[in-house]
Amino acid sequence: MFRPRIKVIDCTIRDGGLMNNSHFTFETVRAIYAAVCAAGVDIVEIGYRNSKRMFSPKKYGIWRFCDDEVLKRLTDGIETKTKLAIMQDAHKADAEDLLPKSGSVVDLVRIATYVKDIDKAIRLANNATEKGYEATINIMAISHALDRELDEALQQVEEETKIIACYLVDSFGALYSEDVDYLVHKFQRYLKTKEVGVHFHNQQQLAYANTIEAVIRNANYLDGTVYGLGRAAGNCPLELLIGFLKNPKFDIRPLFAVIGKEIIPLQKTIPWGYNIPYMIAGMLNLHPEAAMELMNLPEDDPKRSDFVKFYEKMSGVDA
Amino acid sequence: MFRPRIKVIDCTIRDGGLMNNSHFTFETVRAIYAAVCAAGVDIVEIGYRNSKRMFSPKKYGIWRFCDDEVLKRLTDGIETKTKLAIMQDAHKADAEDLLPKSGSVVDLVRIATYVKDIDKAIRLANNATEKGYEATINIMAISHALDRELDEALQQVEEETKIIACYLVDSFGALYSEDVDYLVHKFQRYLKTKEVGVHFHNQQQLAYANTIEAVIRNANYLDGTVYGLGRAAGNCPLELLIGFLKNPKFDIRPLFAVIGKEIIPLQKTIPWGYNIPYMIAGMLNLHPEAAMELMNLPEDDPKRSDFVKFYEKMSGVDA
Repeated sequence: MFRPRIKVIDCTIRDGGLMNNSHFTFETVRAIYAAVCAAGVDIVEIGYRNSKRMFSPKKYGIWRFCDDEVLKRLTDGIETKTKLAIMQDAHKADAEDLLPKSGSVVDLVRIATYVKDIDKAIRLANNATEKGYEATINIMAISHALDRELDEALQQVEEETKIIACYLVDSFGALYSEDVDYLVHKFQRYLKTKEVGVHFHNQQQLAYANTIEAVIRNANYLDGTVYGLGRAAGNCPLELLIGFLKNPKFDIRPLFAVIGKEIIPLQKTIPWGYNIPYMIAGMLNLHPEAAMELMNLPEDDPKRSDFVKFYEKMSGVDA
Repeated sequence: MFRPRIKVIDCTIRDGGLMNNSHFTFETVRAIYAAVCAAGVDIVEIGYRNSKRMFSPKKYGIWRFCDDEVLKRLTDGIETKTKLAIMQDAHKADAEDLLPKSGSVVDLVRIATYVKDIDKAIRLANNATEKGYEATINIMAISHALDRELDEALQQVEEETKIIACYLVDSFGALYSEDVDYLVHKFQRYLKTKEVGVHFHNQQQLAYANTIEAVIRNANYLDGTVYGLGRAAGNCPLELLIGFLKNPKFDIRPLFAVIGKEIIPLQKTIPWGYNIPYMIAGMLNLHPEAAMELMNLPEDDPKRSDFVKFYEKMSGVDA
């Protein structure tokens, strides 16, 4: 039995872009986009629409900006019911970078924010809904959020926006199932008119399990990425999620095909997936940045596999 | 807060031996054994004590037989409270291969069995307890067990043995958290005088999450392997489990050290870990054998990444 209200969102290129400054080739992104559409996934998020004042187009690839013209070329000729999404960072995006909906192929704008920036997020979300888009607010680093501040932010989101869903984002891959229960329940208590969304990272191999836990608790917006491609250990693998959900509208085969052709070759240059430095960061509820630095050292650098030293440094044992 | 009754069992070499016919070097096994002892793990299972009539010592390494003399050399000079375990397959081991306890460094004998072989398993378990060892019975392929047969087997185990724990073994990596709840509860209903143990495979990235779920449901014997090394996608990673449990007797650092030095180099020759062929087998609740064959093809063999064909074959679409 399936729950029709569940929406699955692919964010492979957006989250994976945090591992390579959004430098995917157009062909790779087109192949992944086509596969996700063919799989019947509800929404696909291609990248960020972040500010070119704050991110240099020389350093970052086109998927950090997702100009409307690029997205039109990307989607051209692919017939699909899958909605197109982009993400704006609350503290790194400009409202005026969003055209009115009539001039864009974008359907949904997702605003990523820390709790402390919730007012900026609300402003950008309202900018999006006023211009005719659907919108969500995705609260990042949720494992560091203080209850009092989070409660107030959720109250504001409920009262001050017309978004369709508000997400809890486990940026650090630190949550266990009981944390998921606690947070989904808290979100539901405040968000009477919005859906709850979840986005997990796999630092402790719990992204998929936590997504299932959230489904059991009635969260309905579920993020995944193809083969888990995403920051640090990556995300809930979309193919596992599609394999779990019983909705017959999904077809898992296009995902298997694109994993073999496009995703596995990326493993040669992008070190996502379960690795001890990420695991240590997740277990300690820390940002994965230092672990990512370690994982980007050459494979034969002994520092890269001196996990004890990294653990002692991260846990403050030697501080 | 921790639960003192929880026992953690490392079975890295035993389960990993299913990927390389138990051909680990003595030095590697000694290093892993020493690390697991230093980490404060309760029990370490080194390998099988299976029949040399049924397994050729020419084809299989010494850890498939674990002669007492080999185990004495292995443990010599390492002071530890960690108990030593070996495994016997109910249908592939001989009772007479077990010396009386006084002549052996082994503490615990684990009998692996399918439900249908439960009478053989009980005979071997009783052989072990009568000779002075502790024993467990580990019921494999639990996701294929029929309720009626499993109920009867558990009743027999309770009445006819003096084992310390009876395990549910998710050989195919097919269980979801609700299956874990159902099975742990069922085991507890029958096993009034024994502990419940759990052993999960990671085909769907749920081995660790399912272990946590079993802890929540009061299972107290928990299997893991260092860095998840084990058959197919491997097992619950021991370092994650130790990171989760709060018992101060554990020290995670020896595990990190041995992962860097001994386990990661094994990845060059042993293809365990999350991979699509294993995931397909787990999702379809099938034995991973066919997936393992695929994963053992050369990396540049196009069959190895034709996941759609493998999925259609395994799911019977083309049958």
